[in-house]
Amino acid sequence: MSSLNNGAAGKKFVRRNEKLKASTNISIGGALDILRSHLNVKDERPTIPLGHGDPSPFGCFRTTHVADDALSNAVKSAKFNSYVPVGGILPARRSVAEYLSRDLPYKLSPEEVFLTSGCRQAIEVIISVLSYPGANILIPKPGYPHYDGCASANNLEIRHFDLLPEKAWEIDIEAVEALSDQNTVAIVVINPGNPCGNVYTYDHLKKVAETAKRLGIRVIADEVYGHLTFGSNPFIPMGVFGSTVPVFTLGSISKRWSVPGWRLGWLVITDPNGFLKQAEIPSSIKQYLNMSNNPASVIQGAVPRILENTPEDFFKNIISLLREALDICAEEIKEITCITLLHKSQGSIFVMIKLNTSLLKDITDDLDFCIKLAKEESVIILPGVVLGLKNWLRITFSIDIPSLKDALRRIKSFCDRHAKPQ
Amino acid sequence: MSSLNNGAAGKKFVRRNEKLKASTNISIGGALDILRSHLNVKDERPTIPLGHGDPSPFGCFRTTHVADDALSNAVKSAKFNSYVPVGGILPARRSVAEYLSRDLPYKLSPEEVFLTSGCRQAIEVIISVLSYPGANILIPKPGYPHYDGCASANNLEIRHFDLLPEKAWEIDIEAVEALSDQNTVAIVVINPGNPCGNVYTYDHLKKVAETAKRLGIRVIADEVYGHLTFGSNPFIPMGVFGSTVPVFTLGSISKRWSVPGWRLGWLVITDPNGFLKQAEIPSSIKQYLNMSNNPASVIQGAVPRILENTPEDFFKNIISLLREALDICAEEIKEITCITLLHKSQGSIFVMIKLNTSLLKDITDDLDFCIKLAKEESVIILPGVVLGLKNWLRITFSIDIPSLKDALRRIKSFCDRHAKPQ
Repeated sequence: MSSLNNGAAGKKFVRRNEKLKASTNISIGGALDILRSHLNVKDERPTIPLGHGDPSPFGCFRTTHVADDALSNAVKSAKFNSYVPVGGILPARRSVAEYLSRDLPYKLSPEEVFLTSGCRQAIEVIISVLSYPGANILIPKPGYPHYDGCASANNLEIRHFDLLPEKAWEIDIEAVEALSDQNTVAIVVINPGNPCGNVYTYDHLKKVAETAKRLGIRVIADEVYGHLTFGSNPFIPMGVFGSTVPVFTLGSISKRWSVPGWRLGWLVITDPNGFLKQAEIPSSIKQYLNMSNNPASVIQGAVPRILENTPEDFFKNIISLLREALDICAEEIKEITCITLLHKSQGSIFVMIKLNTSLLKDITDDLDFCIKLAKEESVIILPGVVLGLKNWLRITFSIDIPSLKDALRRIKSFCDRHAKPQ
Repeated sequence: MSSLNNGAAGKKFVRRNEKLKASTNISIGGALDILRSHLNVKDERPTIPLGHGDPSPFGCFRTTHVADDALSNAVKSAKFNSYVPVGGILPARRSVAEYLSRDLPYKLSPEEVFLTSGCRQAIEVIISVLSYPGANILIPKPGYPHYDGCASANNLEIRHFDLLPEKAWEIDIEAVEALSDQNTVAIVVINPGNPCGNVYTYDHLKKVAETAKRLGIRVIADEVYGHLTFGSNPFIPMGVFGSTVPVFTLGSISKRWSVPGWRLGWLVITDPNGFLKQAEIPSSIKQYLNMSNNPASVIQGAVPRILENTPEDFFKNIISLLREALDICAEEIKEITCITLLHKSQGSIFVMIKLNTSLLKDITDDLDFCIKLAKEESVIILPGVVLGLKNWLRITFSIDIPSLKDALRRIKSFCDRHAKPQ
């Protein structure tokens, strides 16, 4: 049996998928695993997880009974135990089309909706479908690293454009123009923003759409945090500009309904002129999904009731909770010298804050900060380097208020303890 | 906007993922889509679907109330709405480990179990993890085309070995020995068999394990039809020979519990000597899953109750239904001259039958047979060419008895009508 363990066969597995390893290095999950491994098991205080975007474990963010009942009814009906057609069952696709059409100047059809295993799979599908040898894609920095991972896995060249902190994290349009060429397949726009909490104005999105049109590239609009806004800018879906430029709209029920574990997302073609259809994109998406995985049938069966029957009060309550949590975050951060919130989030569930290591005596960078914070204070926050921005920190504030306050107190005492003497 | 539609950007999408297109050509779903497109909408009789392996739409194969209740309870508990750890939640992994350990001479640990989005994702994961440039894999012919699709997508060279119809579809061991070399990563063994309905004896599996050991290759044991046996051979899990050769065991709740739409499968390391661990396979699997999708959290939450509490009567009833359906199939096929059942299935939900086109006046091959059958009789069965065996047919018999009888009558009248005059 040793031939399997050592020798030629052993080598096989050392040489395994290098691409995968490369892309995994930048995943949020991987980074959080590292941080957790530094937790001090002797600290009797609860660990406070501000590292990833999942409000669901906290009672105050519990999903609506409408979602629970919809899923239980789908189970009881025994109508949703079978394999589902590629792209999803018609009633669910139709209800997503109707849900998104409410905010668009045109009506989507169910055939333009493809259900995916969360928004993550929507990213995988669209990146894979758009890839070809020599192509490149424009991805925001900071951004959501799954785009980079998927692009790498598809040998799609990544070109990063900056989001501008001094301009409320708007897209650096000049950089986009400079980076784009004839092999650019798309620009990724995350709005409301992860990790920056930006909510773009109508005018800024219009400018992005017109730029993309001029450059001849598609827009991938990641709206997984759609409608989770609490500032002065309302949420405008990119699909509003679908007549200007073809848009792929990505979303899910994960965040707005607080059920990320259910893995129900969508990839939607918002392109009233039908250019993407002419380019056979829908059939490419179907081909890809035919070889891939579907969201669970029973959850698809619950989608129409979830999207149609959730009371407005549920959403209002979540927004008011998020606004309160953000306000607390913003106030407490002001009290901590070495971190700065340049622009208060208007949406999503994150703030992106700047770390000034020169004010700290023994912290080298954001990763070091987060590791030591985990170790000493049992608080997990995400180092910006994972999102493409060194010496920034991403804090998730979709957590119950007492835990959030506790976490911010611990961060303050950590920073005080590590401050350089004045 | 025309630059997006025509010109350079238009070409991008024509050159899209050729690998994907190639692999999709051989998918069962794609083949069934083609057949369905030939259905005669004017035929008022119901279409009878004997093309794919999904018993769940038929009342008699409805899943147990234990599964329904387990899932409803998981929903109500609100404990399973969050993101899940890579590989699955511990209680679900533990229960799969215990479920499989019942039939093994050693005990599996939860860390050896990785939950996947159905058995399909388990296939994708293991093929991807084992792939490296220049490697090859041994796949049965006929077989389940998703293996071929995944191998192609990973540039893993496919080497087919025959299953021998005259030997109850046993593996051609001599062929396996001839095909294997130092770059062979694994042999795929599907037992109970799709599409052949084989259930291998202890002795045959032992021979396969010893051969794999001698050749220095792993075994991928696809046991998605595990325990669905109704002939003289009992189901022996390949993991029984895990001390001889490291085995990857693939399975799911899809078939035995009749809930394929729930997408809950597993990839399990059955390797008591720990060779795969030493070769860092578990961490490769985790890395892959970290970039991929998970089965829905609520369904993971239901797994322990499903695996532990399902009454034996539910399984017995399913087996007795399958046996009855198979007997009817076998009897009726005897009455149809141009098709022959060489070996009666002992497991799974399929029979593989030989088509003799020389007895038919206007049928060129199995695909032509299936297309015309769909058109004229509204019965869907799968052409063997999709499974690697031209001029064979795969019939699914996990369907209610009246529909099965109706389908077989229609097949007989189709064959009679197309028979060459004697």
